[in-house]
Amino acid sequence: MSGIISTSCWSAANADLVLTNGYVLTMNQDKTVYPHGTVVIKGNKIIAVGDKSLATQYQAKQTMDVDGDIIMPGLINTHTHVSMTVFRSLADDVPDRLHRYIFPLEAKLVSRDMVRIGANLGNVEMVKGGVTTYADMYYFEDEVAKTVDKIGMRAVLGESVIKFPVADAKNADEGINYALKFINEYRNHPRITPAFAPHAPYTNTTETLQKVAKLSEQENVPVLIHLAETDREQQVIAERSNGLSPVQYMKSIGALNSHVVAAHMILVDDKDIETAKQADIGVAHNMSANIKAAKGVAPALKMYDQGLRIGLGTDGPMSGNTLSIIDELNQVAKVHKLVNHDRAAMPPIKVVDMATMGGARALHMEDKIGSLEIGKLADLIVIDTKAPNMVPMYNPYSALVYSANSANVKDSIVDGKLIMKDRVMLTVDEDQIRKEALDYTEIVKDTVIKSGEKVL
Amino acid sequence: MSGIISTSCWSAANADLVLTNGYVLTMNQDKTVYPHGTVVIKGNKIIAVGDKSLATQYQAKQTMDVDGDIIMPGLINTHTHVSMTVFRSLADDVPDRLHRYIFPLEAKLVSRDMVRIGANLGNVEMVKGGVTTYADMYYFEDEVAKTVDKIGMRAVLGESVIKFPVADAKNADEGINYALKFINEYRNHPRITPAFAPHAPYTNTTETLQKVAKLSEQENVPVLIHLAETDREQQVIAERSNGLSPVQYMKSIGALNSHVVAAHMILVDDKDIETAKQADIGVAHNMSANIKAAKGVAPALKMYDQGLRIGLGTDGPMSGNTLSIIDELNQVAKVHKLVNHDRAAMPPIKVVDMATMGGARALHMEDKIGSLEIGKLADLIVIDTKAPNMVPMYNPYSALVYSANSANVKDSIVDGKLIMKDRVMLTVDEDQIRKEALDYTEIVKDTVIKSGEKVL
Ligand SMILES: [Zn+2]
Ligand SMILES: [Zn+2]
Repeated sequence: MSGIISTSCWSAANADLVLTNGYVLTMNQDKTVYPHGTVVIKGNKIIAVGDKSLATQYQAKQTMDVDGDIIMPGLINTHTHVSMTVFRSLADDVPDRLHRYIFPLEAKLVSRDMVRIGANLGNVEMVKGGVTTYADMYYFEDEVAKTVDKIGMRAVLGESVIKFPVADAKNADEGINYALKFINEYRNHPRITPAFAPHAPYTNTTETLQKVAKLSEQENVPVLIHLAETDREQQVIAERSNGLSPVQYMKSIGALNSHVVAAHMILVDDKDIETAKQADIGVAHNMSANIKAAKGVAPALKMYDQGLRIGLGTDGPMSGNTLSIIDELNQVAKVHKLVNHDRAAMPPIKVVDMATMGGARALHMEDKIGSLEIGKLADLIVIDTKAPNMVPMYNPYSALVYSANSANVKDSIVDGKLIMKDRVMLTVDEDQIRKEALDYTEIVKDTVIKSGEKVL
Repeated sequence: MSGIISTSCWSAANADLVLTNGYVLTMNQDKTVYPHGTVVIKGNKIIAVGDKSLATQYQAKQTMDVDGDIIMPGLINTHTHVSMTVFRSLADDVPDRLHRYIFPLEAKLVSRDMVRIGANLGNVEMVKGGVTTYADMYYFEDEVAKTVDKIGMRAVLGESVIKFPVADAKNADEGINYALKFINEYRNHPRITPAFAPHAPYTNTTETLQKVAKLSEQENVPVLIHLAETDREQQVIAERSNGLSPVQYMKSIGALNSHVVAAHMILVDDKDIETAKQADIGVAHNMSANIKAAKGVAPALKMYDQGLRIGLGTDGPMSGNTLSIIDELNQVAKVHKLVNHDRAAMPPIKVVDMATMGGARALHMEDKIGSLEIGKLADLIVIDTKAPNMVPMYNPYSALVYSANSANVKDSIVDGKLIMKDRVMLTVDEDQIRKEALDYTEIVKDTVIKSGEKVL
């Protein structure tokens, strides 16, 4: 019998991919770190995480020796409009830009082609910026879904619901129907979570918001929404609701349920934060985009410390103007120190937590992604620790937050599959994607020139 | 005679290096842009800048077709302590860190080896972050000078003068003597400008500051100094001077001359700004490092708009914690919008101007560097416009400021010589530099562990 046991011990277990020799940041509850660690993947799941010795216990189809580089959970971009990459760098810094430029531009140009071309480009940028999962709100989300399926990323894709006519719906009800069809089509996709995306409280009626809330429970899907973002929104909602804040208004109409992922949450007070917590909503903190528009800084540290589901987002590429979460970390850490007048505020470990587990919690996916733990989906990235800006690394969280940039993201694995190796995309043709995008920009330029607006 | 002229017209002029097919941002007074531009270099100077047709007029030893990428002046880092890379990510976010950790750590570890090893590492990081010229304040600056000479960058190197004993001087007078020797040694170097670096007003006596001021005029060299940075400084100086601000104190003692390059200038009022302008000092704006320490945001926009000589700096790698100016642009643009409550404040073109001509003016080198103009030194960088984050590029300044990151800096030319091509260093052995730095970090770790401080 001892012989049988010995044989069993000696025979290596099966695995598909083993990453060895990594500085592994698990981002689990205890923030366990393995400075010479191993991550074992089978199928689309993590089946073991541990130190050096673990590697010898598995026989893998593929082994990646990452030579001391950081292995960490893929970063989560909790809020964007990926297809808007084709408009990036147009009319930056213009007052009332959304209503003066963006809505009119979209009225002219949003189409299936535009959505696909922009999403393809933005997906590549995100992977290169360390993002493995993102949440998107836009039109023709079934086109975005095709690009996500192809590149191999994970995404929560919210089909827009808005009260005025848009490219894929004449009114909010048509938007809801479009979303329902999309939800039915993608309900069982292994990497795509279809969702409703009512644009904002002030761009929808109370009835629409209530209808979406009810349907989100019926269909068990997320509701992505812009909330407590602008003065204009605050004013419109106050007028509509006898002076309620956007958060209190959403609660009062029964639309603040646990499916909601609220982007921004800048204009919130302590009562709103408590209400958001009780409702168990997710929050997308888009600091860098928010300050670009001088909207202010959401009390993200307070929300995080009070246990809200809060992750980081870039907002759309006309807002941020990047989709890279790794380049966001530095800014989040520093700006919260500035606004809190405290250099100890928002330490790197909290920022990395927000970008990983926080994002997973914000998207209500914390049981599936956000950390490197047994049973979780295998979404992880490798960060180059040999780049001069990453040397030395007395503290890996400091290095990631204060020093790392997009150039340091080397490899990306999503759902157990390698989609970028040494910054080369493996599942899509990056050159072709760029060419399509550049061709499309000629159409954008023509449209803008014809409009007579001086934004080029 | 016409024949002779024709021959002369047809014969190509000589050039050493011609860059063609670039999106050329000259950053000259008129901000001239050549979307299909050419830059012609002979020796260490720019001899022509213009559109496509210019390329045919020169016969060059070497031609670089940059295929639509941006060609722009090299970025200028107006304030750092490059050798401190070896301490990066130690004790981040600790209150009173300079006095509690940094000074004691330096007392134990600063040496010729440490200075050289750290500078080698930081130089590579800077080149990869688009920096071609930097201003440094530290000890053993002759060691930094050797590394700058080797890698081929341009630098203003300030030897520290400080009232307490440091590694290379027992007191301020010894520091001054060390500086004088260094100045004599490097006075005629084509790329290195030796300088005095009195640490700050509060860490030097009035007599020392006056002596340095006098010597700076005598020797015609810059004076690099930290000024109006911390509450502690403000308090010490107020006590010393019957309530004067640091800037007014410096003026009152005759130490605010046109050789001064003042880092930080956070705690300044309108009178201080006017005084600084009248004195014609340069200003290094280290926004990202300043907010990391919750010191506040210097009124850089006001200083820029009032015509002060103001450029961007990273501060040392224990402060920032990077040395990359390209990653700084985004933050400078956005944080000034936040603090000015105005999304139109600090537009990208001003930020790029600060990072190039502004930096040149801050270092009193605007006749030599900072723009791509005939007769200027050939310091320029090429920025990848094919990276997904740089597509599309309706506005090149927006793209550079809001979207670009270190990964997009492709090539670097300093003093007419290519020092980085496709992100590969050509003049130094990057692997060797990293190995030396990593070996040195073991010494740092031992020292920190022995000190008993919990900072690892
Ligand atoms: Zn948004
Ligand atoms: Zn400094």
